[in-house]
Amino acid sequence: MAHTTWFFETFVLAKQQPDYRLFHPLYGYLFNSYYESEGAHLARPQRGSLSRPTVAEVMAYRAHVDESMRRMLKEPLEPAVAALVELGMQHEQQHQELLITDIKYILGHNPLHPAYDPLGIGPQDVTAEHDGTCPPLDDWLSVEGQTIRMGHQGPGFAFDNESPSHLALIQGVDIRVALVTNDEYLQFMRDGGYQRHSLWHAEGWDWVQTLKFRAPMYWQPDPNQPDGWGHYTLQGVMPLTSQAPVTHVSYYEAHAFCDWAGWRLPTEFEWEAAASRFDWGRRWEWTRSAYQPYPGFARSEGAVGEYNGKFMVNQQVLRGASWATSPGHARLTYRNFFHAPLRWQFTGIRPVRSRESA
Amino acid sequence: MAHTTWFFETFVLAKQQPDYRLFHPLYGYLFNSYYESEGAHLARPQRGSLSRPTVAEVMAYRAHVDESMRRMLKEPLEPAVAALVELGMQHEQQHQELLITDIKYILGHNPLHPAYDPLGIGPQDVTAEHDGTCPPLDDWLSVEGQTIRMGHQGPGFAFDNESPSHLALIQGVDIRVALVTNDEYLQFMRDGGYQRHSLWHAEGWDWVQTLKFRAPMYWQPDPNQPDGWGHYTLQGVMPLTSQAPVTHVSYYEAHAFCDWAGWRLPTEFEWEAAASRFDWGRRWEWTRSAYQPYPGFARSEGAVGEYNGKFMVNQQVLRGASWATSPGHARLTYRNFFHAPLRWQFTGIRPVRSRESA
Amino acid sequence: MAHTTWFFETFVLAKQQPDYRLFHPLYGYLFNSYYESEGAHLARPQRGSLSRPTVAEVMAYRAHVDESMRRMLKEPLEPAVAALVELGMQHEQQHQELLITDIKYILGHNPLHPAYDPLGIGPQDVTAEHDGTCPPLDDWLSVEGQTIRMGHQGPGFAFDNESPSHLALIQGVDIRVALVTNDEYLQFMRDGGYQRHSLWHAEGWDWVQTLKFRAPMYWQPDPNQPDGWGHYTLQGVMPLTSQAPVTHVSYYEAHAFCDWAGWRLPTEFEWEAAASRFDWGRRWEWTRSAYQPYPGFARSEGAVGEYNGKFMVNQQVLRGASWATSPGHARLTYRNFFHAPLRWQFTGIRPVRSRESA
Amino acid sequence: MAHTTWFFETFVLAKQQPDYRLFHPLYGYLFNSYYESEGAHLARPQRGSLSRPTVAEVMAYRAHVDESMRRMLKEPLEPAVAALVELGMQHEQQHQELLITDIKYILGHNPLHPAYDPLGIGPQDVTAEHDGTCPPLDDWLSVEGQTIRMGHQGPGFAFDNESPSHLALIQGVDIRVALVTNDEYLQFMRDGGYQRHSLWHAEGWDWVQTLKFRAPMYWQPDPNQPDGWGHYTLQGVMPLTSQAPVTHVSYYEAHAFCDWAGWRLPTEFEWEAAASRFDWGRRWEWTRSAYQPYPGFARSEGAVGEYNGKFMVNQQVLRGASWATSPGHARLTYRNFFHAPLRWQFTGIRPVRSRESA
Repeated sequence: MAHTTWFFETFVLAKQQPDYRLFHPLYGYLFNSYYESEGAHLARPQRGSLSRPTVAEVMAYRAHVDESMRRMLKEPLEPAVAALVELGMQHEQQHQELLITDIKYILGHNPLHPAYDPLGIGPQDVTAEHDGTCPPLDDWLSVEGQTIRMGHQGPGFAFDNESPSHLALIQGVDIRVALVTNDEYLQFMRDGGYQRHSLWHAEGWDWVQTLKFRAPMYWQPDPNQPDGWGHYTLQGVMPLTSQAPVTHVSYYEAHAFCDWAGWRLPTEFEWEAAASRFDWGRRWEWTRSAYQPYPGFARSEGAVGEYNGKFMVNQQVLRGASWATSPGHARLTYRNFFHAPLRWQFTGIRPVRSRESA
Repeated sequence: MAHTTWFFETFVLAKQQPDYRLFHPLYGYLFNSYYESEGAHLARPQRGSLSRPTVAEVMAYRAHVDESMRRMLKEPLEPAVAALVELGMQHEQQHQELLITDIKYILGHNPLHPAYDPLGIGPQDVTAEHDGTCPPLDDWLSVEGQTIRMGHQGPGFAFDNESPSHLALIQGVDIRVALVTNDEYLQFMRDGGYQRHSLWHAEGWDWVQTLKFRAPMYWQPDPNQPDGWGHYTLQGVMPLTSQAPVTHVSYYEAHAFCDWAGWRLPTEFEWEAAASRFDWGRRWEWTRSAYQPYPGFARSEGAVGEYNGKFMVNQQVLRGASWATSPGHARLTYRNFFHAPLRWQFTGIRPVRSRESA
Repeated sequence: MAHTTWFFETFVLAKQQPDYRLFHPLYGYLFNSYYESEGAHLARPQRGSLSRPTVAEVMAYRAHVDESMRRMLKEPLEPAVAALVELGMQHEQQHQELLITDIKYILGHNPLHPAYDPLGIGPQDVTAEHDGTCPPLDDWLSVEGQTIRMGHQGPGFAFDNESPSHLALIQGVDIRVALVTNDEYLQFMRDGGYQRHSLWHAEGWDWVQTLKFRAPMYWQPDPNQPDGWGHYTLQGVMPLTSQAPVTHVSYYEAHAFCDWAGWRLPTEFEWEAAASRFDWGRRWEWTRSAYQPYPGFARSEGAVGEYNGKFMVNQQVLRGASWATSPGHARLTYRNFFHAPLRWQFTGIRPVRSRESA
Repeated sequence: MAHTTWFFETFVLAKQQPDYRLFHPLYGYLFNSYYESEGAHLARPQRGSLSRPTVAEVMAYRAHVDESMRRMLKEPLEPAVAALVELGMQHEQQHQELLITDIKYILGHNPLHPAYDPLGIGPQDVTAEHDGTCPPLDDWLSVEGQTIRMGHQGPGFAFDNESPSHLALIQGVDIRVALVTNDEYLQFMRDGGYQRHSLWHAEGWDWVQTLKFRAPMYWQPDPNQPDGWGHYTLQGVMPLTSQAPVTHVSYYEAHAFCDWAGWRLPTEFEWEAAASRFDWGRRWEWTRSAYQPYPGFARSEGAVGEYNGKFMVNQQVLRGASWATSPGHARLTYRNFFHAPLRWQFTGIRPVRSRESA
């Protein structure tokens, strides 16, 4: 919360309101997570030992900034300022989702496995999968070879990495309506998926060997379950739901699974061409597209220009959204991106099969 | 040499010749650099301390394998075997180039800066740049927006990553006939290129800050030169040739330079569309395309299937060839690939400018 | 608190009270900091992310154990059990001191430099030095060459590493009544002490060069002070008191300072022979004795035998106590020990000069 | 050889001979292994890639220095210069031994296990153990409690760390005539010595767990041997000789073995008091004494003062000599020192039992 508040203070209030008073001269240093243009920032490994400012002080900081923002919003904003305010809100929505995934990570790696929401009052990370409405596993949509228009054409908000809109050429493929399920992933595991190097990227194989992974993140052996596994959820440790979409897999695992199954991951172009025809939004779906700028992409001037462009190397694009994404934040053209080994997001796998194998 | 010899012994002789006798039972372990299918291999950091087998023993190994290969080649080969022999020769050509770049690396990092070829008898890594034939720096080729056919269409040899041939859509751009010169790169350096974070990828900026780089690899300050720099070459330390193409830059540096100049790197599709219209082959040219499989790519069965596909994540494509590439090894559709920070190859920068900025 | 509570639960209650019920089956795993005999323990780097059990749960754990201990202590204890109870209390006193030094470390490395005790209500880490009662700096005590009896001779409590009592031979030396002051240490700094390799151990020099230390821990440049420095204390950042004993120095720094001054550190034998004749107890005093077992030392059986003996390699002995040591915990024969580079304790320097230089 | 030659050039010729011409201006940088006073030196990890200067160039360097030394030695030397020449020769003797241990390390870690001396022509690291003259294992010498004179008193050469001669007090102990044998060490291994944490120092246990050691360096399982083991020697891989002294053990292993056997290692004072009564010189014998200066020790002025004193922290003393020590280099008062985990020297274990357990 302090970091998203800092965004409004630094990029909106301090720059637009001549008489704005910084809440604390050092908060910029503390809560600037990585914007190089805005001066020094605290090294990441030291953040874990920050016991101050306290929660109460951070809440007072928020109230101070909220008050100034409220006053400012009573007047009409210039378009450039309005765009920054909107960016600040979108940025905060992103961190709302990260709060959920971070809480799950911290509690899920605590030896006590404490439940975040034992009564299941809040949004629930497995309930959706309990209702048995998984689409048929053999339902494939045909995507014809075509030239399609990609990217944001909106009037609405979009991040800079979704522009400019442009044409892309895709070949004909089939894309599956259902995401890969826990049950399908268990078959991969039982068939030695984590022990067969030929299925993996070279660096994925090093990753599996070094870290000794044998299952998705949060899975733990449970001899009391018929399938031998349980998994940590925000409601605590629970049995797997066999038809629920597998989640918390890395790009390496998503690739190896597909290789094993005779499928592959979609490119982000194929995904965008087909997504209006299936339900998406429960899992961030790995694509096999590396995160690169769209043709004609130009980064914005100044610090907000650091938002997306500077990460366009050595990451993979994920499309869609997850159940933890803030309402209203999802978009068909949205381009999320993560490093290949990361698994703490609610990631998933959507298979594609090339037309010739159909 | 032992490693390329091992390739012929393992993938050709041991599999095709029933009575072939391994030269030494442990050589497979010593000289298998990474093929997982072919059993254990020596960890990379320990290779530097291998004083045995001696040079004489490796030459005897080579003679043993050459003799068996010669005998085998007297008879007609089945097509699958002939393909493996050709792959073995192409593999050896790749290592011939790596020998040159490795020798340059080892001698160039020796405090004595010993020259490899002080008399300039062999192929020379700077002579070509002395003759002043650098194309004009303002000569740009126009590449129209179009759908082009990419990749290998045979009949000659190509690596699996150049297939299948397929259509790609490109937008109109201008691509420069001349590579970026040392003189242009010096302007970037003098203009604070290595100190301005806004020009760099986030991880490129970390790389520059951590390793304190301020110039391409092999450059060293020389107060006796008008431009203040010298560079190590295989002929020893020499002054820079201002119109020679800059080399030994990482992908991060190539990107930052282009950002500074208002240009960008080409995609590998743009490059392939235009390359028949300019001279290439002196530098491996960084593209902004991540190394991904072509649509419909399928890896080969068995160990040779590990050749290319398993590296298709977190690397960048380089196109063209360098002066150190073996004669006959270069191809318009050739896809080389390296990690973004690497600089010990003879890399270079070819600028593109988007049509709207023309 | 959870860890010292666990000590009583594990070594006293669970072993002595047949009907004792563990408060929580996983707490042993969470709060066993290093006793190998008592089963698995949480890896140290992961402790920082433990948000559960909560403070309230730890307090309930303490109340549960306190209640059981109180009931047990109503009956006479067998001597072996009484010894474990005493060990548990001494262990808790050690952690009381570590709480203070850890709090200072965490707050003192927070960019906001929050004061722990801004009003100076509790025990104060600089007040004692304000009263100007530093002993004269040229007051040296003569310790004659002699055979002295070292170590604990009872009847009260002592740790196993203080036994057995034995004879040691020392040569005649002079030992100073006053500890080295901030002012003296500043002279060392101004004379290039941190830049002159000849004063340092080889590994101390590497440490200084790598970590770029130029002053004791918690010192920070302050251009508003005549001596140019301030330092973080539990009351916040304050000016240095010139006559106060320097603190938060490593063994390497203590050694280098003495080498510069023409002095040396005392052995723990010299220290014990002389300490009854000077005031000690404000700083843990580095000695030049490595932490080794006394002649005839035998470790206790079982897990409590891990208490001291297993650390008797590659550490230095510190003698005395600091102002943060629990009342009643200090002893003339007490042997504290730390690794040479550590500085977060309240360490200090007492000089010795060899007789021949007197 | 280049490094020991550099010692004569730098500390003798360049300082004593006004007209001495340095063989090469950069050799000082290349071959200064760690003397800070003598300027910059090459970082240790980069030394492995030095292919130049060549062997021929180093031999020419040696000839150049030998020639100058020979000319100088025709005239009488001032005592200070003669002392430096003697120090240079002793330094070279030390490196002669290190050459043998380094060659064994490099060849012994080569997967081919090449023999250095397959015919056993040179000094042999196992022959001495073949003749069956191991002293009886139950032959213990009684060392009375006493005050003894320690350290060098000679007229002959000694390193600075052997001075000044001084008195030390020791308690009565028994010390064994025989070193610990391979057979005794095998009993420790079979009794779970490497799996029982209670026998080990805390950091020794971490070392064993992390590196997964289960036997001395150079031992390798051999199912064809009755005891299940072979070991690499300079003559190649051979069976163990059961009565030969175990070697290539770390301080941690020596300590754990003694703890298991109910014994302990001697202090260096006990060792020096008793050594004239047993044969020593086949193994460097770990002592339980940390490497500290003798009372009254003062380091020499200048660079040669870096020889020993700056290492006097966090190392253990070893006494005696090994079969690889140069003839004439061993001395009763010699103090060798190594870090606790190191095993590539020819180390051994001599047991002591405290008198009370006799």
